[in-house]
Amino acid sequence: MYSIGIDLGGTTIKGIITGDNGYRSEIIRIPTGTASGGDGIMDTIITVIEQLMQGMDSSVTIGGIGLGSPGFIDTDGVVLGGAENLPGWEGMHIYEPIRQKFGIPVIASNDVTVMAFAEYCFGAARGINNCVCIALGTGVGGGLIIDGQLYSGTHGMAGEIGHISVDTNGRECNCGQRGCLEQYVAAPSVVAIAKEVCRKVKYMKTSEFVNSVIENPDIVTSKFIYEYVVKGDPIACHINEIICDKLARAIGVVANILAPDRFVLGGGVMMSGDCIVETVKKYVARYCWRSIRNRFDIKAAELGDEAGVLGAAALAMRGIP
Amino acid sequence: MYSIGIDLGGTTIKGIITGDNGYRSEIIRIPTGTASGGDGIMDTIITVIEQLMQGMDSSVTIGGIGLGSPGFIDTDGVVLGGAENLPGWEGMHIYEPIRQKFGIPVIASNDVTVMAFAEYCFGAARGINNCVCIALGTGVGGGLIIDGQLYSGTHGMAGEIGHISVDTNGRECNCGQRGCLEQYVAAPSVVAIAKEVCRKVKYMKTSEFVNSVIENPDIVTSKFIYEYVVKGDPIACHINEIICDKLARAIGVVANILAPDRFVLGGGVMMSGDCIVETVKKYVARYCWRSIRNRFDIKAAELGDEAGVLGAAALAMRGIP
Repeated sequence: MYSIGIDLGGTTIKGIITGDNGYRSEIIRIPTGTASGGDGIMDTIITVIEQLMQGMDSSVTIGGIGLGSPGFIDTDGVVLGGAENLPGWEGMHIYEPIRQKFGIPVIASNDVTVMAFAEYCFGAARGINNCVCIALGTGVGGGLIIDGQLYSGTHGMAGEIGHISVDTNGRECNCGQRGCLEQYVAAPSVVAIAKEVCRKVKYMKTSEFVNSVIENPDIVTSKFIYEYVVKGDPIACHINEIICDKLARAIGVVANILAPDRFVLGGGVMMSGDCIVETVKKYVARYCWRSIRNRFDIKAAELGDEAGVLGAAALAMRGIP
Repeated sequence: MYSIGIDLGGTTIKGIITGDNGYRSEIIRIPTGTASGGDGIMDTIITVIEQLMQGMDSSVTIGGIGLGSPGFIDTDGVVLGGAENLPGWEGMHIYEPIRQKFGIPVIASNDVTVMAFAEYCFGAARGINNCVCIALGTGVGGGLIIDGQLYSGTHGMAGEIGHISVDTNGRECNCGQRGCLEQYVAAPSVVAIAKEVCRKVKYMKTSEFVNSVIENPDIVTSKFIYEYVVKGDPIACHINEIICDKLARAIGVVANILAPDRFVLGGGVMMSGDCIVETVKKYVARYCWRSIRNRFDIKAAELGDEAGVLGAAALAMRGIP
């Protein structure tokens, strides 16, 4: 059997064809083009599917199309919310237009849930039946594998790990709470914290990192920061410790509730910061029951930015009856 | 089919026989007797089962024995920890002695998990496939129903909701963290907070509640406090608001992670405080995503102190193949 996986992102829509014989096509990438609203995004998704099919051997039949999307996707394929980066996408019915166009069953889920499924099928969570994936990107999301199944919660809304408050009096979040995890470990937050710390210690002229950040704040990204962490810059390392302490708090909370076998950390921030896993491990024992802590491990995601398409294709392969 | 349900508590062991025809025997209660350690507790459990069987019609055959116990119970029936109220119970193998004595399959799980299963089968969570039960007693525990199944996590350790930190700089907990939910909403914590608040406002001679607490602190229980909440005493109501705010924070965290359909609140504190559910509802919107908040409800448990035996019996009925 063959299936198509689509990964809908804020800037790019990616697509792949995979087969249960291990076949993987080239990944097709087209800019999302959010200017024409929800219908425009749907048109681009259909274009990606058409291009994939054009490149296909005529003997291949597609059994299903899977799609990972930002936001909450209910079981009927309706986008209920949480997709602020995609204007007009909320309220869209994902299944109907694709089914009508191609006559193939469609299944959609939240992008981080789909990433978790990819890591469960092919990556860092292979064979791990109770697993929590945390994606540290522009925002912070969670994907849950429970008893070997994707768990999406009521109306696809589970996994809002980014809004666990890790500091009661901490940084304000647009959700109305204070100290949400997202305010510390999402890429823009990591950058904001780095700039704040550097402004406070700008007298430390000996640090090349601090000088660079103060002189040219626009070049600061999580990748930039983690290059200095790797070099051992003390201020960059201090920022890493702040971030990992907060992440460890959230992992502790989730571990106390779900007692999973493994946490998998992925997303853009993780791609810059290999060392995050080790630093988080150092802190996490403080924030959960000892007997629980001794029974889970923490690993970096293995599939990088291919997790979205691979997970969506796997979902189509396994999730459509 | 008939099954036996055993509820192992710190002070009493309770037992019942139930039938899938709706039959429920009288509940037998024997003091736990913790002086003789784990083996003594096991002897008392066996005595309870024997007494239940003696009262049984000779035509009845028992298909399984279910047991709810404090602490973490792994899938082999070994008590891995978390049962501090029962000295000598940690490390015990629950299944072997009962199986040997009666030749009947045994299944055991954490007491709050079992309570959650009872509420799912017979009580406030009937028909609710994704549900979180929180028991507010001497400690605070959680039981999870996920996709219509009990979820116990790795080695039976899921549901440690009492150790979600709801105040980063809050009350110290014996787990090493600060601000654990248990430090606010477990029965001893409710009493401790009430005494602290009353000491601070003891000049308020007009409050009968404050006077009683100051003059006779030993009589204060959560039941005592909630009698004054019902009467509208402003200080008692203030204490209720503190407690419910913290509980709402923890519910918000769990809701963000699991997006369940329902929370069920039970345990001794809830039996005193009907009004807790309404007060918690008032606060909970602050602490979770709005779109998630709009999709779950919060109810009081319905089965009271019979939840343990009923859940254990149901587990034996449905959980033993």
